Amino acid sequence: MSLDTPMEKKPHERLQSALSADLDAVGALIRERMASEHAPRIPEVTAHLVDAGGKRVRPMLTLAAARLCGYDGPYHVHLAATVEFIHTATLLHDDVVDESKQRRGRPAANLLWDNKSSVLVGDYLFARSFQLMTDTGRLDVLKVLSNAAATIAEGEVLQLTASQNLATTEEIYLQVVRGKTAALFSAATEAGGMIADADPAVVQALFTYGDALGVSFQIADDILDFGGDAEKTGKNIGDDFRERKLTLPLIKAIAAGGTRDRAFWERTIEKGRQEDGDLEHVLTLLKEHGSLDASRTDALRWSEVAKAALNDVPKSELTDMLRDLADYVVARLN
Amino acid sequence: MSLDTPMEKKPHERLQSALSADLDAVGALIRERMASEHAPRIPEVTAHLVDAGGKRVRPMLTLAAARLCGYDGPYHVHLAATVEFIHTATLLHDDVVDESKQRRGRPAANLLWDNKSSVLVGDYLFARSFQLMTDTGRLDVLKVLSNAAATIAEGEVLQLTASQNLATTEEIYLQVVRGKTAALFSAATEAGGMIADADPAVVQALFTYGDALGVSFQIADDILDFGGDAEKTGKNIGDDFRERKLTLPLIKAIAAGGTRDRAFWERTIEKGRQEDGDLEHVLTLLKEHGSLDASRTDALRWSEVAKAALNDVPKSELTDMLRDLADYVVARLN
Repeated sequence: MSLDTPMEKKPHERLQSALSADLDAVGALIRERMASEHAPRIPEVTAHLVDAGGKRVRPMLTLAAARLCGYDGPYHVHLAATVEFIHTATLLHDDVVDESKQRRGRPAANLLWDNKSSVLVGDYLFARSFQLMTDTGRLDVLKVLSNAAATIAEGEVLQLTASQNLATTEEIYLQVVRGKTAALFSAATEAGGMIADADPAVVQALFTYGDALGVSFQIADDILDFGGDAEKTGKNIGDDFRERKLTLPLIKAIAAGGTRDRAFWERTIEKGRQEDGDLEHVLTLLKEHGSLDASRTDALRWSEVAKAALNDVPKSELTDMLRDLADYVVARLN
Repeated sequence: MSLDTPMEKKPHERLQSALSADLDAVGALIRERMASEHAPRIPEVTAHLVDAGGKRVRPMLTLAAARLCGYDGPYHVHLAATVEFIHTATLLHDDVVDESKQRRGRPAANLLWDNKSSVLVGDYLFARSFQLMTDTGRLDVLKVLSNAAATIAEGEVLQLTASQNLATTEEIYLQVVRGKTAALFSAATEAGGMIADADPAVVQALFTYGDALGVSFQIADDILDFGGDAEKTGKNIGDDFRERKLTLPLIKAIAAGGTRDRAFWERTIEKGRQEDGDLEHVLTLLKEHGSLDASRTDALRWSEVAKAALNDVPKSELTDMLRDLADYVVARLN
C-alpha cells in the first residue's frame, strides 16, 4: 500500500473534494451561528478552533451519509455543523485544567484561554448545536444526537475514574473510547442516514460503520502514541503514559506482565512517580508482551467491521471513499 | 407586611404544597435520569446538588404554569426536570475555578470536586436535559429551551468580560442578568404554558412574568449582597465587591461618583488591589449616592411588571401564588 505517496490523494482529501460545496455551506453556517451579538469573546475563543479547521472528518461523515442515501434537502448541512459544534465544545472542555495538576507543575493545556472561558464558550456551542438541530424539525435526529452527547460526557467521566487505575479492563477502555470518540462518529453517520429518510437497516449500517470507524481510529491513535512519527501525529511519544492514561497497549501490557511488573506500574501509573528511563522501560515491556501488535490486530478488526457494514448501504463513489477511510485509519500503523 | 411571621407560609412554600405530587414526580425522574450505568461518579457529584434540593423554584414555575393553564398530561414533569438539570449543570460549571485565581490565593469554590469533574458532569446533565426534552415530542418547547441555554451561556461569557470593567453600563448589567437568571425563569414559565397548548397571548404573558421575576430576583440578590442578613442569604456582605463583580448598586454608585471617586474604583475593581476598609468605604459611597435605594426602586418596578403580566393568564390559586412570589422576592428588601 502506498496511501502516502504524494500523487495519490488520501481518502479524507477525496471526501473533501467530493463534498466541497456542502463543506463550504457548513463553514458559512458555523461562522453565522458562532457569532454572538452580546459577547464578542465567543467568536474570539472559537475562531482558532474552527478556522484552523482540522480535517472536518465528523461533519464529512454526516454529509457523505446523507448524500450517499440520496438526500438533496438543506438540513444535512445543519447536522454537520451540529456535529462540529459538539466536537469543538468537547475540545474546549477537555482544555479545562485541574488546579491540582497545575500545582504539580504540569504545563497548562489551555495556554490561550482561561478555564472559565473554555467552559462557558463550550456551553454556548453546545446550546447552539441544539438550536441548529431544532431547525431541522426532526425529533428522531435530535434524540440520536442528544443520546450521543450524553454518551460522550459519560465516557469522559468514566475516563477520569479509569485513568490511573490499574484495574481498568479492556471492556472499560472500550466504553471510554465509545464515549470519547465513537459516539460522535456513529451519531454523525446515523443522523446523515436519518435526515435522508433511509431504510432503517441502512441507518443501522451507517451507525455501525461510524461506531467501528471511531473505535478503530482511537485504538490506532493510542498505538501511535507509543511509536508514531511525531511530525505526522503532532504528539510526543509517550504522552499517554506520562499522563497516566490507561490506553489499550498499556492495559494489555499490564495484564501480560502479571505480578512481575506490578510494582513498576503501581509506581508510575497509580502513584504517578515517574523517573527518567521509565518510558524506555514501558517501550521494552510493550515489545516483550507484543502489546502494540495485539492492539494493532484489534484496530484492524474494527476497521473490517466498519467496511463490512458498508455492504448494507447504497453503493456510490462516496461509499467507496468511506471504505477507503476505514482502511486509512489503520494504514497509519504500517 | 409580615411575610416572615412563622404562622404565614411563604409563597414558594405554598407552591410547594400545592404542587407536591408533581414535585415528587420531578424528584423521581431526576434521580432516574441522573443515574449512569457506566460512570458512578456522576450521581456522586450531583447528589449533593440535587438532594440538597434548594427551593426548586425553577421547576415549580414550569409546573405551576402548566397546571394553571389546565394541563393534565405527564410532560410538565419532564420539562420541570429539564429546567432543574440545566440549572444544576450551570451551578457545576460556575464552580470551575481559574488557575490564575488560585494562584492569587483565593479559596477554591469547588472544594468537593475538581474542575474536570464539575465540567464533565455538568455536560452530562446538559445532555440529559435535552434527552428529557425530546421525550416530550415537542419541537417548539425544545426551541425555547435551547434558546434559553444559549442565552445563559452568552450571559455568563458577557459577565466574564463585563466584570472588572468600569465601562459596564446598566444595559450590559441587564443583559448579564437576563442570561444568568431571567432566561431560565422565563423559559420555565413559557415552556409550561406551551406544553399545555395555551393561547399564544397567555404563553407570552407567562414568558414576561418569568423574565421580570428573574430580573427582579437578581437585582434583589445583588442589593442584599451589600446589606442582607448573612444568616438568611447565606452570603457574606460584600462578596460581589471582593470578586470585583459590577452589579447594579455598584454601577449606579460609580456613575454617580463621577471623576471624584474614579481612582478608588480603578484601584479596587479594575486593578483588584483591595485593602482593609475598602468595603466600608463602598458602603458609604452607596449610601451617599442613594444607590441601594435606586436599585430597590428598579427591583420593585420589575416585580410590578411580573405581576401585571399575570393579568393575562387564567385566574387560579396557583396564579395568586405566583403573584405573591413576585411580591416576596422584593419583600426581602424591606
